[in-house]
Amino acid sequence: MEHAVRSFLAEDIGYGDITTNALIDSKQEAEGRVVCQESAIVAGIEEALFLLELTGCQGTAKARDGERVKAGTMILSALGPARALLGVERTLLNLLAHMSGVATATVDLVSIANRESQGKVRIACTRKTLPGLRYFEKRAVNLGGGDMHRLRLDDAVLIKDNHLELAGSVGECVRKAKEKVSFTKKVEVEVTNADQAVEAAKAGADIILLDNMTPKEVERSVAMLKTENLRDQVLLEASGGIRKENLASYVKTGVDVISVGAITHSAPAIDLSMEIHSSRKRG
Amino acid sequence: MEHAVRSFLAEDIGYGDITTNALIDSKQEAEGRVVCQESAIVAGIEEALFLLELTGCQGTAKARDGERVKAGTMILSALGPARALLGVERTLLNLLAHMSGVATATVDLVSIANRESQGKVRIACTRKTLPGLRYFEKRAVNLGGGDMHRLRLDDAVLIKDNHLELAGSVGECVRKAKEKVSFTKKVEVEVTNADQAVEAAKAGADIILLDNMTPKEVERSVAMLKTENLRDQVLLEASGGIRKENLASYVKTGVDVISVGAITHSAPAIDLSMEIHSSRKRG
Amino acid sequence: MEHAVRSFLAEDIGYGDITTNALIDSKQEAEGRVVCQESAIVAGIEEALFLLELTGCQGTAKARDGERVKAGTMILSALGPARALLGVERTLLNLLAHMSGVATATVDLVSIANRESQGKVRIACTRKTLPGLRYFEKRAVNLGGGDMHRLRLDDAVLIKDNHLELAGSVGECVRKAKEKVSFTKKVEVEVTNADQAVEAAKAGADIILLDNMTPKEVERSVAMLKTENLRDQVLLEASGGIRKENLASYVKTGVDVISVGAITHSAPAIDLSMEIHSSRKRG
Amino acid sequence: MEHAVRSFLAEDIGYGDITTNALIDSKQEAEGRVVCQESAIVAGIEEALFLLELTGCQGTAKARDGERVKAGTMILSALGPARALLGVERTLLNLLAHMSGVATATVDLVSIANRESQGKVRIACTRKTLPGLRYFEKRAVNLGGGDMHRLRLDDAVLIKDNHLELAGSVGECVRKAKEKVSFTKKVEVEVTNADQAVEAAKAGADIILLDNMTPKEVERSVAMLKTENLRDQVLLEASGGIRKENLASYVKTGVDVISVGAITHSAPAIDLSMEIHSSRKRG
Amino acid sequence: MEHAVRSFLAEDIGYGDITTNALIDSKQEAEGRVVCQESAIVAGIEEALFLLELTGCQGTAKARDGERVKAGTMILSALGPARALLGVERTLLNLLAHMSGVATATVDLVSIANRESQGKVRIACTRKTLPGLRYFEKRAVNLGGGDMHRLRLDDAVLIKDNHLELAGSVGECVRKAKEKVSFTKKVEVEVTNADQAVEAAKAGADIILLDNMTPKEVERSVAMLKTENLRDQVLLEASGGIRKENLASYVKTGVDVISVGAITHSAPAIDLSMEIHSSRKRG
Amino acid sequence: MEHAVRSFLAEDIGYGDITTNALIDSKQEAEGRVVCQESAIVAGIEEALFLLELTGCQGTAKARDGERVKAGTMILSALGPARALLGVERTLLNLLAHMSGVATATVDLVSIANRESQGKVRIACTRKTLPGLRYFEKRAVNLGGGDMHRLRLDDAVLIKDNHLELAGSVGECVRKAKEKVSFTKKVEVEVTNADQAVEAAKAGADIILLDNMTPKEVERSVAMLKTENLRDQVLLEASGGIRKENLASYVKTGVDVISVGAITHSAPAIDLSMEIHSSRKRG
Repeated sequence: MEHAVRSFLAEDIGYGDITTNALIDSKQEAEGRVVCQESAIVAGIEEALFLLELTGCQGTAKARDGERVKAGTMILSALGPARALLGVERTLLNLLAHMSGVATATVDLVSIANRESQGKVRIACTRKTLPGLRYFEKRAVNLGGGDMHRLRLDDAVLIKDNHLELAGSVGECVRKAKEKVSFTKKVEVEVTNADQAVEAAKAGADIILLDNMTPKEVERSVAMLKTENLRDQVLLEASGGIRKENLASYVKTGVDVISVGAITHSAPAIDLSMEIHSSRKRG
Repeated sequence: MEHAVRSFLAEDIGYGDITTNALIDSKQEAEGRVVCQESAIVAGIEEALFLLELTGCQGTAKARDGERVKAGTMILSALGPARALLGVERTLLNLLAHMSGVATATVDLVSIANRESQGKVRIACTRKTLPGLRYFEKRAVNLGGGDMHRLRLDDAVLIKDNHLELAGSVGECVRKAKEKVSFTKKVEVEVTNADQAVEAAKAGADIILLDNMTPKEVERSVAMLKTENLRDQVLLEASGGIRKENLASYVKTGVDVISVGAITHSAPAIDLSMEIHSSRKRG
Repeated sequence: MEHAVRSFLAEDIGYGDITTNALIDSKQEAEGRVVCQESAIVAGIEEALFLLELTGCQGTAKARDGERVKAGTMILSALGPARALLGVERTLLNLLAHMSGVATATVDLVSIANRESQGKVRIACTRKTLPGLRYFEKRAVNLGGGDMHRLRLDDAVLIKDNHLELAGSVGECVRKAKEKVSFTKKVEVEVTNADQAVEAAKAGADIILLDNMTPKEVERSVAMLKTENLRDQVLLEASGGIRKENLASYVKTGVDVISVGAITHSAPAIDLSMEIHSSRKRG
Repeated sequence: MEHAVRSFLAEDIGYGDITTNALIDSKQEAEGRVVCQESAIVAGIEEALFLLELTGCQGTAKARDGERVKAGTMILSALGPARALLGVERTLLNLLAHMSGVATATVDLVSIANRESQGKVRIACTRKTLPGLRYFEKRAVNLGGGDMHRLRLDDAVLIKDNHLELAGSVGECVRKAKEKVSFTKKVEVEVTNADQAVEAAKAGADIILLDNMTPKEVERSVAMLKTENLRDQVLLEASGGIRKENLASYVKTGVDVISVGAITHSAPAIDLSMEIHSSRKRG
Repeated sequence: MEHAVRSFLAEDIGYGDITTNALIDSKQEAEGRVVCQESAIVAGIEEALFLLELTGCQGTAKARDGERVKAGTMILSALGPARALLGVERTLLNLLAHMSGVATATVDLVSIANRESQGKVRIACTRKTLPGLRYFEKRAVNLGGGDMHRLRLDDAVLIKDNHLELAGSVGECVRKAKEKVSFTKKVEVEVTNADQAVEAAKAGADIILLDNMTPKEVERSVAMLKTENLRDQVLLEASGGIRKENLASYVKTGVDVISVGAITHSAPAIDLSMEIHSSRKRG
Repeated sequence: MEHAVRSFLAEDIGYGDITTNALIDSKQEAEGRVVCQESAIVAGIEEALFLLELTGCQGTAKARDGERVKAGTMILSALGPARALLGVERTLLNLLAHMSGVATATVDLVSIANRESQGKVRIACTRKTLPGLRYFEKRAVNLGGGDMHRLRLDDAVLIKDNHLELAGSVGECVRKAKEKVSFTKKVEVEVTNADQAVEAAKAGADIILLDNMTPKEVERSVAMLKTENLRDQVLLEASGGIRKENLASYVKTGVDVISVGAITHSAPAIDLSMEIHSSRKRG
């Protein structure tokens, strides 16, 4: 995390903030206040505090990561050299605004899922994250109450359509993966109909991803697994085309997890600003 | 660029794609086709080709960066080891989908500006970019016909509200910046009313940013600068609260540039997918 | 992998091979042959070929990664500038010798396990790997037929004695982990007696690590889990104090996996050498 | 050193210790004690303290680097956040265990050499080190009383069999190297018989490496150099096939240095463990 | 800056200062004094303090960056472990000596320019900086009162002879650049005669670089721009073959800026030394 | 080397060459010719060819590294995309100009030394190199016929005045270093008078650095060592205050090596330029 955050700062500063260096005395001290301009779930406070520390400022969290705040809430204050505050301002706001955007989009779905399932159905993100930001987006999803799903290609098996196209049937692929991959990894497989779901469960899949099905088709798959007495042996995940508007109908199907790429790749930024005021000059 | 793209790939792959390694023979060759599922401006083809080259695949562009494509268009094809294609798939799609999202959001505004101003008013992005992605987002804005504005804190002066709060009046700050900063850099200043705009122009500002004004207030500032015979000496940029819905009214005010943060920080991803088919085995 | 291999080379070369630069003409071409001086499982050929490519040489594998070779077998040949071959020689041999050492140590245990269990019991390594070499050692274990176990702290849950000391009972910890961690991750817990094993299984652990038990105690744990009808719901791993000499007695206990740290942290290097002969001068 | 140690930590942690994060409160403080489970020379305390500092813990050395400790000795204690201690535990132990293994293997040989030569014969390591660990292994050898030999290919000349094969006779190569290489570097040459040793000394070699000779052959080389009145002008190093069992016979031959690759590339890890106990919660 | 400074240190230290480690106790404390042996403008104090901090020493500036000091002046003192002071000495002196050399060379020209133009003409450096040292040399120029000019290829447009050769006339190139490049960037063009200068100004160039002209030709260009009423719309920079000896004649031509590559690429180092004395041993 | 060269390029290019991108078509091909504008020793051709390769151009050496060329000589030609040539031009010239400057300054001294000593006295550089450029400057010295001396603090012992101040007499320090440092390293000590030189030789120093002495004092030291029959056991290096003007008088003193910091830290750049012409458009 620290390495990435340093590079975010370097990306914005270059050789230096020429505006600030021209206008502000190097001994001028100042106070900055980060205000959230809309109702949101805050995420990225920890990263923001690290950014402030990196630049020689002292930050104080006024809201916790994962907390819901109202429009107009001060969520962070900072003391330090005015030059440092002005130099870190944009990077800090960009990271906080994006992470809070992801957390807020996550909570929107999580609360629907909780309401409709009494807390039984999890909302998960996917690997559809913005390049270079996976750690930060996964963490924001988590702060919003979502499940982080796979972190990368090496921490769980997920057999997708392209694998099936190249490597054989659902059953064959699941069996082969279980044999070849470490016993510490779960094996998940993507299916597109109820028969494949049954085939996957019989082959020993740990998780079955019901991909791009209608709620009806999902329900049918759940039912067929129950009939075959296989429902309890697997976790069921639904994905594909699910959004706020149709989420409830998927939650009611009886799956365990619903995953949505948009909460990471298309979450709108939260509107944040930083006001900086002079405090005193140093020595 | 290359360094960043390599790190995007590493972020997803970790120690290796355990699913693919378990299921696909290392000698299996395949073909991948990237299809754009919605009408969009394509951006990121160059980066995608570099990703394919990095992983030992051969890519062929089927659309140019900056081109408008219809839903269902194949924009890129790739040949190479099936393992490599499966390993690079998600990183490639994530980058293309985001860059295309930014380019598409840009074009949406650029075409309004062109229509309402006969091509005289530019749409620009800001430094409100997602951390680590500035190069890619600026490039996508450019591909969408937008102006890249400042790249970072060292390539132009922009005196903002927080600077004015700490360092003096609009006129004083502009004069100080012009004296201290290299003659190769333009000096821009943010103002909130017409009087400040006049003060800025008199002090020799190259660009004046009319911040958070209504279209009416912007018009009044333009008029006052004309009255004072200062209009031709400065470029005028409007920013703050401008979105697709109210863009036309700002375009008509007579400013030169309109900048919008949302085209980078909140652009929804374009829906892309990659289909992979077996070709033949090697040797 | 590539980044690490480059750094291995830089570590040995520094500003340049002063001996070779003083003695060998830059246009001298040569051929190198890597010979394995003892019976061993070869591992690291892929890395060696990459090292040769990095330094402008052309390598040809004479043995496959994972293959058993007899003493005196040529496993790799290389053509290229004599300076390059002399410069890469030691780094290439150091990596091959260590990886082959790990693979050979693994196979020694895997063949006992296969023999005593008709292929049912897996041998796994642990996170007790040499710093900076985890990827290479895990891969060598895999080439020797072993299971790679956890890659790092984020790809599966393993609740160890120190966690239990700080966070509560086996059952509580397992339940808490299952609730908080992504559904894509398995939950393993370390236990030291049969009662804890039953507690773990009841709490829903996916894997139970029977730590530092005698074969008798392991057998008792297996039996008790069978009695409680829980054996089929969990994978059982034995670890702690297991070595070649007592491996068979653990294999017979009925566990699924036996893990041994020594195959990575204490595997003796395989004796390899490279002979270099002049071929011709370039142009 | 610091850069490498950071990368060792990152290699194990990935996105985070999911087990610990799920089970342990972020405010829980704990104490860790590293205990050495067998008689050993401790090496790596400095690196361990740096690792603890990196993760926000406070370490206290209970043994010095290079000190002999008995089985059961606590060699290091640490205070800090329980999460940090659990996260750093394995990396710290892996590094300490390996470095202590190297130092202990070195001391085993050094004490034989000292006893048989009244401290006149040095034990040296070679460039046969594990990739990426050269600094740490060389330091451990030094802590065990061994000589670090060449650090890499640029700090001394060592003309080996492959150089002689390509570049001419022992005498020619030594003369060429002395002419071309900086006057600040020593010139060493590998020989396989007494005549070559004399040739090397006459050509002005600073050090002669008697390679793969029996103790008898080494003695004969020493004698012949004395006869020719060349013994005092050169340092003599014996290497190849020397191990604990036959070391004494080489020590008695009258050489100055004996080098052994196995103390770095095949040193078994020392058995270490860390026990972590709760201390108190923070504020 | 910090990243570069760390790499400067690593470049000199390698695996460690073997001289110092052999001779100086790790607990020995010492005091170092950096003395400037000739009259100079000091530059690099900030970097030197960072180097001292990096190595665990405490530095105190005895002169300010940009200050003129006499021969024999102590400009910096440092307290810390003797090993650290001896290890950092050369890197610190090398950086300070070069930056001070650049600043001193700059001031030599700036004072002539100020004297001859009553402070109206600026002295600027160019992109002819030593590889890897641009940040440090630009900063030193600035400390010497010079203008930093372009930092790199992305912060301003400068159309040079090679561009004109490939892309068209002065007028065409200026117009194309103004259309394509962000409104936040100035457009400068290199011309070789007065007619081109007028063409450039008419096309809207912000800055005109009068390249390799005699003072007479420069004067003629200035006059012709005045005649055409274009002088006030552009900044004029003279460059090429200008050195201390002929600087005054260029200053008097009426240009705004004179740029000289030699102040960065050929500035002789200032003679600095560090004396180290023992203070006390630690605990 | 490659890593450094890449960073030199990145330092200049930033997000891209905005001038070139605005003016030159991406398909335009061109030819560049690097011409040396003054008599010089060329150094850096190898690095220049690597830079061209990095940017997708094809370079052809027209002069060899280390060759003396007359003013007006074309030393390198290049073919490739016009954008690439324009982007790499300045970095390539900056590196070539500096390395050639160092090589030329070296040859100036080497030819005096050769003439006055019939090739017996070597000219060496020191560790007074520009930060980040040591590899390139050492290589340039070597190409100019100079000795590279120590590369960094770990490849030879050099006991300097500050060590003697802290650690004891010349004799004590030499003996201590020989005991503690690897037998593969030479031990050099800095002395300021003839008595110390004798003391150093008696203690077994390999090299004695006669620091800041007049030619007379150097001669006296040489004579005294001869009287004591110690001259042949040591190499003698003179340093401090030696420059072109007084070099001959030092060469005649009978020392083996003369080292001069100015050939690296203060070598003026050689005047080089690149002319770029259009060739043809691609496809």
